Amino acid sequence: MISKVNDSVYLDKVLPAENGRRLLINGTQVGAGSFTLIAGPCAVESAIQLEAVAKLLHSLGAHFLRGGAYKPRTSPHSFQGLALEGLKLLRQMGDKYSLNVVTEVIDVESLPQVAEYADVLQVGARNMQNFSLLRALGQCRKPVLLKRGFAATIDEWLGAADYIATGGNDKIILCERGIRTFSQATRNTLDLASAVVARNMTSFPVIADPSHGTGHWELINPMVKASLAAGLDGVMVEIHPQPEKALSDGRQSLTLPHYSTLQYEISELAPAFGKQIN
Amino acid sequence: MISKVNDSVYLDKVLPAENGRRLLINGTQVGAGSFTLIAGPCAVESAIQLEAVAKLLHSLGAHFLRGGAYKPRTSPHSFQGLALEGLKLLRQMGDKYSLNVVTEVIDVESLPQVAEYADVLQVGARNMQNFSLLRALGQCRKPVLLKRGFAATIDEWLGAADYIATGGNDKIILCERGIRTFSQATRNTLDLASAVVARNMTSFPVIADPSHGTGHWELINPMVKASLAAGLDGVMVEIHPQPEKALSDGRQSLTLPHYSTLQYEISELAPAFGKQIN
Amino acid sequence: MISKVNDSVYLDKVLPAENGRRLLINGTQVGAGSFTLIAGPCAVESAIQLEAVAKLLHSLGAHFLRGGAYKPRTSPHSFQGLALEGLKLLRQMGDKYSLNVVTEVIDVESLPQVAEYADVLQVGARNMQNFSLLRALGQCRKPVLLKRGFAATIDEWLGAADYIATGGNDKIILCERGIRTFSQATRNTLDLASAVVARNMTSFPVIADPSHGTGHWELINPMVKASLAAGLDGVMVEIHPQPEKALSDGRQSLTLPHYSTLQYEISELAPAFGKQIN
Amino acid sequence: MISKVNDSVYLDKVLPAENGRRLLINGTQVGAGSFTLIAGPCAVESAIQLEAVAKLLHSLGAHFLRGGAYKPRTSPHSFQGLALEGLKLLRQMGDKYSLNVVTEVIDVESLPQVAEYADVLQVGARNMQNFSLLRALGQCRKPVLLKRGFAATIDEWLGAADYIATGGNDKIILCERGIRTFSQATRNTLDLASAVVARNMTSFPVIADPSHGTGHWELINPMVKASLAAGLDGVMVEIHPQPEKALSDGRQSLTLPHYSTLQYEISELAPAFGKQIN
Repeated sequence: MISKVNDSVYLDKVLPAENGRRLLINGTQVGAGSFTLIAGPCAVESAIQLEAVAKLLHSLGAHFLRGGAYKPRTSPHSFQGLALEGLKLLRQMGDKYSLNVVTEVIDVESLPQVAEYADVLQVGARNMQNFSLLRALGQCRKPVLLKRGFAATIDEWLGAADYIATGGNDKIILCERGIRTFSQATRNTLDLASAVVARNMTSFPVIADPSHGTGHWELINPMVKASLAAGLDGVMVEIHPQPEKALSDGRQSLTLPHYSTLQYEISELAPAFGKQIN
Repeated sequence: MISKVNDSVYLDKVLPAENGRRLLINGTQVGAGSFTLIAGPCAVESAIQLEAVAKLLHSLGAHFLRGGAYKPRTSPHSFQGLALEGLKLLRQMGDKYSLNVVTEVIDVESLPQVAEYADVLQVGARNMQNFSLLRALGQCRKPVLLKRGFAATIDEWLGAADYIATGGNDKIILCERGIRTFSQATRNTLDLASAVVARNMTSFPVIADPSHGTGHWELINPMVKASLAAGLDGVMVEIHPQPEKALSDGRQSLTLPHYSTLQYEISELAPAFGKQIN
Repeated sequence: MISKVNDSVYLDKVLPAENGRRLLINGTQVGAGSFTLIAGPCAVESAIQLEAVAKLLHSLGAHFLRGGAYKPRTSPHSFQGLALEGLKLLRQMGDKYSLNVVTEVIDVESLPQVAEYADVLQVGARNMQNFSLLRALGQCRKPVLLKRGFAATIDEWLGAADYIATGGNDKIILCERGIRTFSQATRNTLDLASAVVARNMTSFPVIADPSHGTGHWELINPMVKASLAAGLDGVMVEIHPQPEKALSDGRQSLTLPHYSTLQYEISELAPAFGKQIN
Repeated sequence: MISKVNDSVYLDKVLPAENGRRLLINGTQVGAGSFTLIAGPCAVESAIQLEAVAKLLHSLGAHFLRGGAYKPRTSPHSFQGLALEGLKLLRQMGDKYSLNVVTEVIDVESLPQVAEYADVLQVGARNMQNFSLLRALGQCRKPVLLKRGFAATIDEWLGAADYIATGGNDKIILCERGIRTFSQATRNTLDLASAVVARNMTSFPVIADPSHGTGHWELINPMVKASLAAGLDGVMVEIHPQPEKALSDGRQSLTLPHYSTLQYEISELAPAFGKQIN
């Protein structure tokens, strides 16, 4: 018998999804018994770079390729991504290697174009409360991967999801990517417990992004395992054939051999947590 | 071959322990291949309360009983713990049920008394930079469980450990217990990635405290599993026969049946991570 | 003679404005020797409400009326503002009472409409890194009031200003409105020292928003004075004829009598800091 | 008439002082109509250094000399202060130049010694919840300057003051010295609004420490003025004859000429805020 103090306080907000915590993306399941692995470079840089990654993912039996074509950057003078050329490369590699393409959409204007090439539309942390974009995504048929803002409360995160769901699109994946705190040992503080809270309060799959969440490639492997163990529905990680030459985020990118090892380890561990990787 | 960007940045501070990451506490190993479980009430309240907990832990084959006899409280008008009476109860139950006693020492004055009754001396988050206390613990033979301050950087945490180690006592267990952030979904933000960083930078065992780290009993089970998966050396959790009647921290305490389930699950999962519980 | 340690570290980023730290908005100076007072309700609610405010401001000789017509809200189910009707009311009262209208623009789509009615275009904290909006504002001739994101670093804030300036619009006013911290005594933590840093690093006027910065009407008066004393170029405050009936932010709104007193006090104090209110 | 929403929420905790917000320290008033200036080096380093500072303060008509004899440091291998020799130098210069000595007490053990030499006993941020030390200070007749912990809530800060007051010593000065936040533009974030809240909730004088609060000497002058304007009762600032050679905190120390200018400016401004410096 569970005592009164142990009743959940997290019952006041339940956001719906079509079929419980389960999405089907071109036949691949996210949520339910799946632990979803999404991997790829921070930014699409070239056909050679992207193909090296896509080929590896295909050989490992992975289903999702991520990569940024439009990069929101702090300074207007930084590399802003390959734009349409990047989208085309993503689609080409996605088709060639049977991978779902996950890429960021940064504004309403480019949404139709991105939606044409991508399988999953990512909303970045900075845009989590770009309500016009969220409303436009509510009109869209494609699944949305909604990152938590780096200083967003759970209410604000779920409120953002609600903008999309209210618009008519409940194919939403929530993604915790680290919050800003005083701590400087890691780039951000990966807030796994709050991700669990968000998962308890909704029926959306919730994944973590340990690359942005920690900023150090050495911490990705342990934090992916921790995400699995905490009951999350997957992870998104940055990988790069040559992290030391990456145009962005090299410090937090796994090499391809490191990623292969990681995926193997997770595939072995997942069943103990009632999950299968995909 | 690992590329240059992937070299560790965490090599500038290596704090030593006698035999690598391994302590022996009355024959029970902490660190190395062990995943240590420390459980007990926030505060020792009565013989009945404590014996219920100790009996359960003994029946589960556990080795560590925690409980507060001296409670540092925000207000001078709050319950401050049973003091010497609490220490005696802890020792009595520890002896009766073959459990190591872990309890907090809050000042230099009471250190000799606490050291007489306890097997492991806990330094709380508020005292992490009480340098006089740390120096006195350096003169002590008993192992020290050093909690990270709720706004301490890793450098400050390891600096605090260094005060103890420099004094001559390298039997130190580091404990991450959550940091203060803007986020209010949890009482604190459990910073598992930084705990991994601290572990990489020292040869001390590092454990987590998901009770204080989250403040919600529902989050303890997933966060204990996450701590195991992240490679930490153990956890400390608050349990209580009747959380709804606890004098402090009932909200974040597991019931005894919940704890039994948790310990069983961890014992089943640990081998997959190269660990055995103890 | 000033010693070496006292050389400024803040010289690596100097963002330009047309005529030094000085804007002319329909003949009213912002920056230079001016301490600008911008006041009005959080949201435009009705003609009666807005006229009460505008009439008071006019009688006090004030030059700026703020008010929200488009309200970005955490939940899609909250009051979202009067939209076009609100803009028209603002323009009407601005014209009738000779006040410049400051109002928020929340997306690229509505920018042309807002720019038609407003004298100053406000970018809210949530949109500080909505780069598409910033780029569109760079094409605009109207002055922009750019709020700091509630978890934005100074580099990110100035980077956002750079998106506007690089686009060709250097009529920018920066506004510190409080950051998110662990502290819950105030709604946000008004970071006056960082506002001073931003002012030292650019030639834009920098103002503070103590209403959002503290969340408590009692703290507005002291924080407006502190902003003046710290050398900032003005403040924006929320006022309401009946704060207890406000549709949003009543808790942090001054009554009209309180605002009258505040403006009088600031007008008396400003000369001691080399400023005149306007 | 003030509407209901404008009633203060800050009435639930009123901590007392003997004569309202007014202390007399060897004839010098703190609180009431006084704006108290406390200045001196971070650490006492030598007789030459300290005398240069004391001589200046005397010539300016100042009443308080601060300086650290016992320095709590992150690492046990850093300079820990001159200890007793430092206390003696402080007393000597205090007597020679008619200045009250403000210095930190770091533990119960050294309290009697520090109390013998000092006029005001400072509790540092790290020790704010060292309850044994607070209780010992409650037994003391000397005034206590209690710094806010760098991650302490207002409740915790006032709770700490309550430990001292409950012990029988209500001669307490509260000091806000900056909190830890994500923001790295300043060393800490000086939380002036919370200092005002603490002042509204108690009858203790409340001062600010812009040296630790910002970490940059350039920001001290504006933040001292802001503290005056916000209604605080004084400031404590670090000054050094040669900041570039300081053993600690040189970056945040004013030169003596800078301090002279600052004190002059504050003496001119204070009457406009109903205060006189002392």
